[in-house]
Amino acid sequence: MNNQLSLDRIYQAAFALKDVARKTDLIYSPHFSGKNQVYFKTENLQVTGSFKLRGAYFKISKLTEEEKAAGIVACSAGNHAQGVALSAQRMGLKAIICMPDGAPISKVEATKSYGAEVRLVKGAYDDAYAYACKLQDEEHASFIHPFDDPDVIAGQGTIGLEILDQLKDVDAIVVPVGGGGLVSGIAYAAKSLKPEIKVYGVQAREAASMADSLKYDEQVTLSTVNTFADGIAVKHPGDLTFSLIKDYVDDIVTVSEDEIAAAILALIEKQKLIAEGAGAVSVAAVMFDKIPLEGKNVVCLVSGGNIDVNILSRVITRGLVTSGRNATLNIALEDKPGQLVDVATIIASCGANVTGVHYGHSDPNTAVTSCVLMLDIETRDFAQIEEIRKTLTDQGFRLC
Amino acid sequence: MNNQLSLDRIYQAAFALKDVARKTDLIYSPHFSGKNQVYFKTENLQVTGSFKLRGAYFKISKLTEEEKAAGIVACSAGNHAQGVALSAQRMGLKAIICMPDGAPISKVEATKSYGAEVRLVKGAYDDAYAYACKLQDEEHASFIHPFDDPDVIAGQGTIGLEILDQLKDVDAIVVPVGGGGLVSGIAYAAKSLKPEIKVYGVQAREAASMADSLKYDEQVTLSTVNTFADGIAVKHPGDLTFSLIKDYVDDIVTVSEDEIAAAILALIEKQKLIAEGAGAVSVAAVMFDKIPLEGKNVVCLVSGGNIDVNILSRVITRGLVTSGRNATLNIALEDKPGQLVDVATIIASCGANVTGVHYGHSDPNTAVTSCVLMLDIETRDFAQIEEIRKTLTDQGFRLC
Repeated sequence: MNNQLSLDRIYQAAFALKDVARKTDLIYSPHFSGKNQVYFKTENLQVTGSFKLRGAYFKISKLTEEEKAAGIVACSAGNHAQGVALSAQRMGLKAIICMPDGAPISKVEATKSYGAEVRLVKGAYDDAYAYACKLQDEEHASFIHPFDDPDVIAGQGTIGLEILDQLKDVDAIVVPVGGGGLVSGIAYAAKSLKPEIKVYGVQAREAASMADSLKYDEQVTLSTVNTFADGIAVKHPGDLTFSLIKDYVDDIVTVSEDEIAAAILALIEKQKLIAEGAGAVSVAAVMFDKIPLEGKNVVCLVSGGNIDVNILSRVITRGLVTSGRNATLNIALEDKPGQLVDVATIIASCGANVTGVHYGHSDPNTAVTSCVLMLDIETRDFAQIEEIRKTLTDQGFRLC
Repeated sequence: MNNQLSLDRIYQAAFALKDVARKTDLIYSPHFSGKNQVYFKTENLQVTGSFKLRGAYFKISKLTEEEKAAGIVACSAGNHAQGVALSAQRMGLKAIICMPDGAPISKVEATKSYGAEVRLVKGAYDDAYAYACKLQDEEHASFIHPFDDPDVIAGQGTIGLEILDQLKDVDAIVVPVGGGGLVSGIAYAAKSLKPEIKVYGVQAREAASMADSLKYDEQVTLSTVNTFADGIAVKHPGDLTFSLIKDYVDDIVTVSEDEIAAAILALIEKQKLIAEGAGAVSVAAVMFDKIPLEGKNVVCLVSGGNIDVNILSRVITRGLVTSGRNATLNIALEDKPGQLVDVATIIASCGANVTGVHYGHSDPNTAVTSCVLMLDIETRDFAQIEEIRKTLTDQGFRLC
């Protein structure tokens, strides 16, 4: 097998993907622009909800007829699983996907819906991986690696070709990094055509295996990865991707969990797009000025949108609190009739909305004859919360 | 002024909009397809977050130099406001937008961000409208109607041209209806080019002024409109739009509030798109089989994405409960140590996640020595909730 990445291979991938992958839209964002011009390459709108389809499909399409007949094995907790499953379905091949048993039910169900056999393996990703390797041996099947494979990387690289086609004047591309297949492919494709372009990778701070590897100039293995950007929670970089990133990627920066959550919420409010944590790290890096991009035409790759709705709900709730649009007030009340009426009247007169009410008697700082009222309120902004707090205090209520 | 809609006028609008409006993507949806092939025309990804920019910009571009110099007045609680404001800004004109003072702060702020002067008018839409008319008189400004105007309708009609360009084989287009400008323009454009195409309108059941008007064959005025799809909460249809809809629209159907919420959640989970209530009624109509579309190529217009995040949060929360992924358990506990440990252990062993805990003593159905524990839990599905309830009951806990 030729182990070299080449522009030739990436163009082959683009041709193979013509009827399978969408040429996702590149959307200019007035809101995110200002110091620079920001465009989003929307791979969250790709078939299967992430870019992973591209590499998986191209890799599988290049197997020999014999290899195809023996079937396919892959291991993934999410997006790669769906990409492999749909690719195998489109080519009429048998696929077994090993997933850790804690994988989100929505991703398990999606993978099954593409016709793959899913084996849930007790434990974490590493356990599922070990099981997949054993299975591959037994079945003489082909193992489709999620990132450390030149065909997989070439498939992801097709995004680089599309970006240059959609925005000739692009100066910089900002890309999420897990194992590094996506950023390797894009950087190789883009710099082969336009050497002066800058390509930056972004990792979650709590899973910065590639950023650390670059820093120490050797492949670092993290003992734990602890980020809600599960799609890029990779403990150890690939050999091929590490080498390509050293040659073609300008820098890898990191973002915090709160910055990722803020980026997801901003994409919802301002761009009407759902991104998963892994898909939004690039946006977070641009929002929070992690990269020198002033005056540049910047393409921010939103790589996937497969976020669990429970997580999404928490991201939104947290975002509402940190932006002053939800608040909780704790008010010490004397235990006598009419108190709730007075409080509710004040809140209504300030134009806020009560969404939750709880009473408690157990605060040791309040008198025996009093209680604590906990109110959840919907507000416009911090100024309105302040106005409510002030009005309550002015009327003799004690906030605690 | 020529009061006739024509294909000519719609092509003029398309030309005028070339550098202003995006040709939004048409996205095929494997998930929503099955009985038919479903595509989404994504006007929620339009500049300003809705299609309203198209009609407003074309209308304003056709004013005389004198009219432009006198400035622009409009009245809107949301999307039209943003469309007018951005259009005026692009042409360097003065715009005053009258909005009811209860309009969502996010829409007020967005309108201001496009450089318009916003006048918040005490009361509802009708009060803002009356104020805007008075203002127009005083300022000799041009009033930009949100729907009952041939240029505004021609602007919205450009979406019809784009759909036929993007999917020649389209059989049916499903469109949200408020005042009726959008569906009139699209139906006129599409049927002028392809007479056999079907065009259906969709309204919220609680604001079905156009559907009722068609039924009684006269313009009906609703006394109240009560839907969270605020973008289509219109009490009285336009004259021109009513006449065009009678001639060009095949049917108008209605959907319930719960159906709209389910459509918003499905768009988030399956398509990674944010729609507002008004923008999702078309999707709800297709999801819940309100229209005979079997075997057809169907384009569902997602007309806007400007949903208040507080509302979105509630839609998601409600969706999680109705799909078995969030639940609240009320458990009667004896008031003795160790009870919470036992309950928490059972829930953990079933693989669910506790997200909220409240204690209460006030349920009159429980003994004085006992209390009620309210637990919010995150679950996978209804089966898991049932398993938890059964395990708790088997271990002697009483659910209430």
